[in-house]
Amino acid sequence: MSRGDGRTNDQLRPIKFTRNWLNNAEGSVLVEFGNTRVLCVASFTPGVPRWLVGKGEGWVTSEYAMLPRATHTRSDRESVKGKLGGRTQEISRLVGRSLRGVVDMKALGENTIVIDCDVLQADGGTRTAAITGAYVALADAINWAKANSHIGKTVNPITQSVAAVSVGIINGQPLLDLCYEEDVSAQTDMNIVCTGDGNFIEVQGTAEAKPFDRALLDQLLDLGVKGCAQLTKLQAEALKQ
Amino acid sequence: MSRGDGRTNDQLRPIKFTRNWLNNAEGSVLVEFGNTRVLCVASFTPGVPRWLVGKGEGWVTSEYAMLPRATHTRSDRESVKGKLGGRTQEISRLVGRSLRGVVDMKALGENTIVIDCDVLQADGGTRTAAITGAYVALADAINWAKANSHIGKTVNPITQSVAAVSVGIINGQPLLDLCYEEDVSAQTDMNIVCTGDGNFIEVQGTAEAKPFDRALLDQLLDLGVKGCAQLTKLQAEALKQ
Amino acid sequence: MSRGDGRTNDQLRPIKFTRNWLNNAEGSVLVEFGNTRVLCVASFTPGVPRWLVGKGEGWVTSEYAMLPRATHTRSDRESVKGKLGGRTQEISRLVGRSLRGVVDMKALGENTIVIDCDVLQADGGTRTAAITGAYVALADAINWAKANSHIGKTVNPITQSVAAVSVGIINGQPLLDLCYEEDVSAQTDMNIVCTGDGNFIEVQGTAEAKPFDRALLDQLLDLGVKGCAQLTKLQAEALKQ
Amino acid sequence: MSRGDGRTNDQLRPIKFTRNWLNNAEGSVLVEFGNTRVLCVASFTPGVPRWLVGKGEGWVTSEYAMLPRATHTRSDRESVKGKLGGRTQEISRLVGRSLRGVVDMKALGENTIVIDCDVLQADGGTRTAAITGAYVALADAINWAKANSHIGKTVNPITQSVAAVSVGIINGQPLLDLCYEEDVSAQTDMNIVCTGDGNFIEVQGTAEAKPFDRALLDQLLDLGVKGCAQLTKLQAEALKQ
Amino acid sequence: MSRGDGRTNDQLRPIKFTRNWLNNAEGSVLVEFGNTRVLCVASFTPGVPRWLVGKGEGWVTSEYAMLPRATHTRSDRESVKGKLGGRTQEISRLVGRSLRGVVDMKALGENTIVIDCDVLQADGGTRTAAITGAYVALADAINWAKANSHIGKTVNPITQSVAAVSVGIINGQPLLDLCYEEDVSAQTDMNIVCTGDGNFIEVQGTAEAKPFDRALLDQLLDLGVKGCAQLTKLQAEALKQ
Amino acid sequence: MSRGDGRTNDQLRPIKFTRNWLNNAEGSVLVEFGNTRVLCVASFTPGVPRWLVGKGEGWVTSEYAMLPRATHTRSDRESVKGKLGGRTQEISRLVGRSLRGVVDMKALGENTIVIDCDVLQADGGTRTAAITGAYVALADAINWAKANSHIGKTVNPITQSVAAVSVGIINGQPLLDLCYEEDVSAQTDMNIVCTGDGNFIEVQGTAEAKPFDRALLDQLLDLGVKGCAQLTKLQAEALKQ
Repeated sequence: MSRGDGRTNDQLRPIKFTRNWLNNAEGSVLVEFGNTRVLCVASFTPGVPRWLVGKGEGWVTSEYAMLPRATHTRSDRESVKGKLGGRTQEISRLVGRSLRGVVDMKALGENTIVIDCDVLQADGGTRTAAITGAYVALADAINWAKANSHIGKTVNPITQSVAAVSVGIINGQPLLDLCYEEDVSAQTDMNIVCTGDGNFIEVQGTAEAKPFDRALLDQLLDLGVKGCAQLTKLQAEALKQ
Repeated sequence: MSRGDGRTNDQLRPIKFTRNWLNNAEGSVLVEFGNTRVLCVASFTPGVPRWLVGKGEGWVTSEYAMLPRATHTRSDRESVKGKLGGRTQEISRLVGRSLRGVVDMKALGENTIVIDCDVLQADGGTRTAAITGAYVALADAINWAKANSHIGKTVNPITQSVAAVSVGIINGQPLLDLCYEEDVSAQTDMNIVCTGDGNFIEVQGTAEAKPFDRALLDQLLDLGVKGCAQLTKLQAEALKQ
Repeated sequence: MSRGDGRTNDQLRPIKFTRNWLNNAEGSVLVEFGNTRVLCVASFTPGVPRWLVGKGEGWVTSEYAMLPRATHTRSDRESVKGKLGGRTQEISRLVGRSLRGVVDMKALGENTIVIDCDVLQADGGTRTAAITGAYVALADAINWAKANSHIGKTVNPITQSVAAVSVGIINGQPLLDLCYEEDVSAQTDMNIVCTGDGNFIEVQGTAEAKPFDRALLDQLLDLGVKGCAQLTKLQAEALKQ
Repeated sequence: MSRGDGRTNDQLRPIKFTRNWLNNAEGSVLVEFGNTRVLCVASFTPGVPRWLVGKGEGWVTSEYAMLPRATHTRSDRESVKGKLGGRTQEISRLVGRSLRGVVDMKALGENTIVIDCDVLQADGGTRTAAITGAYVALADAINWAKANSHIGKTVNPITQSVAAVSVGIINGQPLLDLCYEEDVSAQTDMNIVCTGDGNFIEVQGTAEAKPFDRALLDQLLDLGVKGCAQLTKLQAEALKQ
Repeated sequence: MSRGDGRTNDQLRPIKFTRNWLNNAEGSVLVEFGNTRVLCVASFTPGVPRWLVGKGEGWVTSEYAMLPRATHTRSDRESVKGKLGGRTQEISRLVGRSLRGVVDMKALGENTIVIDCDVLQADGGTRTAAITGAYVALADAINWAKANSHIGKTVNPITQSVAAVSVGIINGQPLLDLCYEEDVSAQTDMNIVCTGDGNFIEVQGTAEAKPFDRALLDQLLDLGVKGCAQLTKLQAEALKQ
Repeated sequence: MSRGDGRTNDQLRPIKFTRNWLNNAEGSVLVEFGNTRVLCVASFTPGVPRWLVGKGEGWVTSEYAMLPRATHTRSDRESVKGKLGGRTQEISRLVGRSLRGVVDMKALGENTIVIDCDVLQADGGTRTAAITGAYVALADAINWAKANSHIGKTVNPITQSVAAVSVGIINGQPLLDLCYEEDVSAQTDMNIVCTGDGNFIEVQGTAEAKPFDRALLDQLLDLGVKGCAQLTKLQAEALKQ
């Protein structure tokens, strides 16, 4: 059985990282997972929020949002509605946790990195693209901070890389990196966040249509881990250029 | 190694369901997981939200909240702050999805059930207690709807039961049903939502302190499934009384 | 003419105080006026709001709220709507004023007590039950503060007790402590807040259906004072246990 | 003992009604109680809110607000803060209830009157001035509605007039119509809303400094009723011009 | 061709400044441009916002708002809606900029002046009346500050006066100081803010119905400058009384 | 005197239009004025807002926003703050007005076009770039609507093109199309919106540092008109490709 775009079940969409997409940000990456396009921007600021002052630790957080016409039909702006939706907050929290999972806050020192992930075009997997791109932007911001003496040159606040991918079951088949069309027809939908050495930072699986059993769960985990390993390589390559 | 309250690693806290805790609600259950106390109230209303009218399907949703002094120190009310926090929305969405996972919307017909889960006292595992208690309140509301002819007597909109439990790793050991003290010191924290027949509705695992490997993940899944099975029995007993 | 629940016109509903309803709060009381059930929780914190710092005085305030299904039909949450309703704010202010009326702020010292009154089930008289229960929670919190040396053992910030009750006129008859059914059919509705020695802290009377004359007002005041005196006794008994 | 402005204890401040203060409103009155200046504007609109449609009844409601510099020091605007304060909502509700107390909603028919009371200058007694002026604006709006055939010429939706005044105790003495300076030093503060024939619509008494006994309460009620009677006359005179 | 109120094309409406309209404000002016009536109140406070502290400069800002029934039909309050409309913010910003254009912030010293412009009645040109009246209130507040030694007697923070007027094109004719009726039928609408010596602080022209050419723009500018010059004289006269 | 980037005083920055930047939108253009980069997306929907239904006219509106790190330092999101800033609303309104100035609403029929202008990178002139790019997106959306039979093929709702540019005075010299660095040091700042045939839709000039006289104003207008004429050509070329 073949997928709409001709991929095999365990194949990622074309992945592309464009670093330094903005002139002024400490780290800025336009990440593309097929047609999904997320601008990930890491802003480095000396100092930490009040509740952390004096503890000798840094802070990393993230905000995720979508442009109104990133999707097929236009959505109202959350700024106009005057409140953040649950989905937005949930994903912002997930991205932040995922990045904090690979940052050594003591090594970061009393500095703050805010990573904005703005979805310019959405075609499924925006949150996993956001995490994957945010890591590259984070790495660039850390390098900027070293180059600008905010962090010692020999210190490395990043313990290892982090990447994320979605997996799902359609017609009983586990598929890697779902596009929007696949996402809406998936019976089960899972997001896997893995470190560069293949361990889990976050696993979130949801039965959309019907409960899933352990065997399917295991297949999804295997597939997700494999996908993250590929993304890890692509991140490393992007960071070398 | 023994736990603070003397439980074995795979032992639930004392679980208690008090049905009909309120006089007027269609279903109302005070659920207790040890010191965690959540009031789960199912409100049944004929009719559905506008976007569902005429489709012959019902709707089930949920709202989760905490009283300001459910926790050790008082938190500001979200109503006073004028906005819902991300955690509140995230859990509300999780509870709603979990319940919808066991409801046949066609069988429910054009009726709406809103399930309010208000945490009166929090000692860890409030979201899993909420889901577990909410199922019992939902079952009562469905029975009320049958008794009051809103749903046909032979129709059963509930396909099976759903229960949830938290599991976590402390000092490398997987523990079932973490209390607050355990929760804050867990390296990994996972919430498992299972159907009565042992399949998964939702799996959410987060590395708090350090990434976890597949072996630990497997242990947590095993433990969570076992815990849900016990809760399934206790729900059934509660519903028999 | 007899009342729906068989009470005489000047009879309170069954009143019950359950102290220490929560494990962690400095004072917590579940107060019941018949089916009306309000959880009153006093949170004691050293320190005062910024505008009071350095004046050697304490602060007591209160927040009142209802769970969404405390009433016959479900109400939307104020946290979801993003704003507090006028009724909520009005009652919160009333409860706060009533308690401040019996607290010597100098004796309290630079400490703050916030009293949360959350209506779990509403059957009329929620604000008067809230005040009456809040006083007991306040007394417990003060005792906790003495036991924990936040306040000197010989100092007494509470000058005397405070209790509240509703009275109303139905078919020309003054009735004490209206339940919901009576409340909606009352021509005049009055809330009386009295100190333990029988003086007034607050008197609020409203003509619902038709203006009332001085003679009726006098009867209502007499009845309210009598009701408060009974509540004062019950509070004292509860605090002795 | 004499008052700051030389009034006797039972004397009102100079009261002034300027009708038709605006060109376009159906009723508009600038009411002055000494230096307190409130613009009361009644807007008449055919039709009722959705929840009243088809019941053959009208609706009267009110909104009270203060300009930012009505007081001695500037207050932030509630529109800028993005939410209504408790005091604002409480007074808006009081004014609305007071006016509804003298309107026959059946006679009003399916029409709505919104009465805006905006305090231009505040020197104590703004809520009682608002009620007293709002009645005059209401009467003008009703007359406009008759003249414009929205209400039958022989129908009278106003059953009688309504006026309000504040009374308070300073140094043990009951005083009528407190100005700001008196208001802040009052031990007890009471607002009385009376109909033209001398009955009560609303009675709100609050112990500011110390609880008050029944004898003082009776004196305040006597004084308030007398004050309202004088205001009733002044309203009638103003409406004759 | 004659205007509805008989004015010539280059004639202002009757302009009136009533100074000291409030008892307590440092500067307060009721300004009238025909039936447009705006209360302009300048509040002087020692000290500046946090971001200006220690720079030896003052701050001038403004807030513009309309009472709900200033217009022909009642508008909902922005405080009730919980947010400021775009028009309100736009005009507030314009008034603030216009006044800052004639204030020497160094000479003002670390003091803040907030100017509230509340439209009591609107008949076109409310923003230009607001600016014109606000200048007079500002001048009074500066004089108060000198008299009260907040500013040195020989220092003059006001560099010169500022006034504003609207101009527009109706049927191809440029008209000065449009009333509401003219405003809605204008093809082009322009607001001109000029200093006392005839230079521009702000020029805002908008094609309402059809784009305008340079010749018309020039005519409008000429007319606006002339109108501002007349207002400048009237301001000076008002400030002399 | 030469400009920082070597341009002559009357020279635009490099202008670039990338059409169809998004896959799904009816019109989407990434417009660049030097380093200023704005994504302009036109969403076409059949139907109009409720207040326009049945009038046979369409509606065009716009929303402008900035990504948090479009600027040199990160700004807080308006969605997180829960309200729109004045600048955002002001520019949104300006863009909407400018586009409506060249649309024949009758010809558009009962259809709505919302144009989102999101600033991805800001280097001065974001509002003028937004208008200029929005026109191209609008034209594409109209073409899409014709191709999809929402609008008759022979009907042209666009009466002509519209473009905008900023002009300003630095050291007494009028400059065209200011970049950020120039913008902050300009004494006067003006935005000119012109139609393709060289008439004005909007003129907004503000004295930032000192009032400007008529001669300077005339120079700025001349320069702005010339700049718009160049942009008009570039728009036409972009639309031909």
